[in-house]
Amino acid sequence: MNRVNETVRSIKPVDFSLEPSLRAHLDRLTKPPKSLGRLEDLAVQYGLITQTTRPRLGKKRIVTFGGDHGVAAEGVSAYPKEVTPQMVRNMLSGGAAINVLARHIGAELCVVDMGVDDPLEDVTGLVRRKIRAGTDNIARKPAMKLEEAVQAVEAGIELAIEAARDGVSLIGTGDMGIANTTASSALFAVLLPCPVEDITGCGTGIDEARLNHKIAVIKKAIKVNQKRLGDPLSTLAALGGLEIAGITGLCLGAASLRIPVVVDGFISSAGALAACRIAPEVRDYLFFSHRSEEAGHALFLRIFKVEPILDLRLRLGEGTGAALAMGIIEAAVKIYNEMATFESAGVTDKS
Amino acid sequence: MNRVNETVRSIKPVDFSLEPSLRAHLDRLTKPPKSLGRLEDLAVQYGLITQTTRPRLGKKRIVTFGGDHGVAAEGVSAYPKEVTPQMVRNMLSGGAAINVLARHIGAELCVVDMGVDDPLEDVTGLVRRKIRAGTDNIARKPAMKLEEAVQAVEAGIELAIEAARDGVSLIGTGDMGIANTTASSALFAVLLPCPVEDITGCGTGIDEARLNHKIAVIKKAIKVNQKRLGDPLSTLAALGGLEIAGITGLCLGAASLRIPVVVDGFISSAGALAACRIAPEVRDYLFFSHRSEEAGHALFLRIFKVEPILDLRLRLGEGTGAALAMGIIEAAVKIYNEMATFESAGVTDKS
Repeated sequence: MNRVNETVRSIKPVDFSLEPSLRAHLDRLTKPPKSLGRLEDLAVQYGLITQTTRPRLGKKRIVTFGGDHGVAAEGVSAYPKEVTPQMVRNMLSGGAAINVLARHIGAELCVVDMGVDDPLEDVTGLVRRKIRAGTDNIARKPAMKLEEAVQAVEAGIELAIEAARDGVSLIGTGDMGIANTTASSALFAVLLPCPVEDITGCGTGIDEARLNHKIAVIKKAIKVNQKRLGDPLSTLAALGGLEIAGITGLCLGAASLRIPVVVDGFISSAGALAACRIAPEVRDYLFFSHRSEEAGHALFLRIFKVEPILDLRLRLGEGTGAALAMGIIEAAVKIYNEMATFESAGVTDKS
Repeated sequence: MNRVNETVRSIKPVDFSLEPSLRAHLDRLTKPPKSLGRLEDLAVQYGLITQTTRPRLGKKRIVTFGGDHGVAAEGVSAYPKEVTPQMVRNMLSGGAAINVLARHIGAELCVVDMGVDDPLEDVTGLVRRKIRAGTDNIARKPAMKLEEAVQAVEAGIELAIEAARDGVSLIGTGDMGIANTTASSALFAVLLPCPVEDITGCGTGIDEARLNHKIAVIKKAIKVNQKRLGDPLSTLAALGGLEIAGITGLCLGAASLRIPVVVDGFISSAGALAACRIAPEVRDYLFFSHRSEEAGHALFLRIFKVEPILDLRLRLGEGTGAALAMGIIEAAVKIYNEMATFESAGVTDKS
C-alpha cells in the first residue's frame, strides 16, 4: 500500500498559471486567434501538464493491459474466455488493430500481462506482471484480494516510471480482457455513481436478452460485494479487473511524473475514473480520446464533464481510440512549435 | 467549356456492388464485427471509390488554392486583403498551419495561385494558375466572367490530372483568400439553397455589427447578380471566387479519375457543393473532413446529409481539417490491409 500512497501524495494539481502565456503564444501564430479550436486547447493542456511554455513531444507509448475475468463464466460476453490470450498473442505478432494504429502514429506498443488465465510461456515481447491468472467471478465473490489490487495498481505505477525513464512524453492506455465491459460497468455504477442499466452496453456484441442477463449479473455482483465498496481501491479489488487496476496505476504514476495520459474508451475510462476517485488531481493529466460506441460511455463522459477528442463510433478497446487521439495531440503540439508568428512571417495581424 | 463538360461526362457513379466483399473482409479481421465503427466505413468508402477490394493508399496531396475577393472592399473581413498574398508566401516558406499538418500526416502540399491580387513574382514553389488578379466586388457586379469561372474550374481539373499522374491516391482540398467566407455563404445560400442569415458566420472573427453588415452585403450580392444564378457554373462566376472554382474543378477532376477527395471546411464545402450541383455523382467521391466552427457549416452538413469525420472546432481553412482527416482515412485503409484475420491469427471467432 505504501507505494500507492506515496505516489498519490506526490501528485500535484496541474498548475494553470502558465495558461495565459501558452494562449498568448498561440495568438501570435499566423492564424486568426482561436481558429484552431480544440487543437489549441490540446496544446495548452499538454503545456500545462508538462509545465512549460515550450512543450515538446518525444516518444509515444501505448500500454495495453491484458487480464481475464472470472465473471466470463456467467455468459456475459459474445466471445469465449480463450480469446484473451489469443488476442495477446495476436498483439505480440503485430496483427491486432492496436498494432496497426500504433505503427500508424509512430508509437511504441507495450503489451502487459496483468492476469491472463494462460501461462503465455512461449511468447516473446510480453511484459510479464501477472498478479494472478484471472479474477474470481464477481457475481459470487470479490474479484481479488485487496493486496492483489494494490499490486496491480503498483504494476501500473511502475510502468509509468519505466516510460518516463525511456523518455516517453505521451502515454496511451489500452485493455484486452473478455468480459471486461462487465467489470467496467460495475465500477462505473459504484464510482460515478449511476444506475447499472444506464451504464451497461453490448460489449463485443451481445443481443438484448444477453444484455438483460449482463445487467442482472452486474447488479448481483454489486450486491454480493456491497460491504467491500467503501473506498475506490477496495471497489477495484471487489469488482475487478486486473487490467483495469493496471490502467488505474498507470494514470496515477503518470500524473505523479507529469506525463500526459491519453485514455482510450470504456474500459480505460473505468480505470481512469478509479484513479481520479483515489486522487482527484489526476483528472487534469488525462486526455479523453474518444466517445465509445459502448452504451454508457457517453453517460460517463457527460457526468464526468469530459469532451472527448474523437467520436468515430469505435468500441474495440486495446487502445485504438487512444492511438488516433495521440496523433491529433501530437499535431496540436507541432502547431504550437512549428508555425510562424505574424511577426516572423511578415503577415499583417487583425486590425 | 468543353473540358468541363467532357470531365463531367466521364464521371461514373460510384459502384456499390463491392460493398459486401469489403465488409466481409473487415468482418474476418481480429475484432468484433463493426467494432471499428467509422474507420470501417471509411475503408469501405475508399475501396468503393477506387473500385477494389484491395485498397492501397499511396501518396497524399493537399491542394490549397489562393484567390482574392473584390468584396473585401466592403469591410466584411477581420483582416485586410494584403493578408492573402502574405499567407501564400507563408505557406511557401513552410510556416502556416497547413504546412505543419501536411508534414504531420506525410502529405505533399501544393499551393496554387488562382487569383491572388499580387504578382507573387519573387516566390518559388508556387503553382501559377492565376486567372485574374482577384474577383470583382460581388455587391456591385459579377465576381468574374463565365469564361473565367470555366478556366478556374479547368485549372482545378488539371490539378487532379497532375495528381493522378504523380501517383497521388488521396487528395485534400484547401483555401486561402481574405473575404472568402462571404463568397462561400453567398454560394451556399443559392446552391443549397438556404437563408443568408443561417449560413453566414464570423469568418476570421468579426463582431456582431460587422456580421450584420456582411449578411446585408451577401443579400445585396445575390440581388445584384440575380439573373446570373441560373445554373451552378454561372452562379460560381457571379458570386466567386477563383479559389472556390478551383476546388470545384479539383473535385470534378478527381471524381472523373476515381481519386477520393477529402473536403476541408466551410470554403471547400462551398466548392464541393458546386461540383455536386454540376455533377451529382461527385458526392460519393468526397470525404467531408470536419464540422467547421464557422456558423453555417453545421447547417450545410445537415442539409447535405453528411456526417463529418472530425469535430474539433476548427475554422481556419487552408486544408487543415482535411489534413487531420486524411490521417484518419489512412489509418482506416491500414486497418483493412494490415490486421490479421481470425483464421491467420488463430483467434476463436464469435460463437
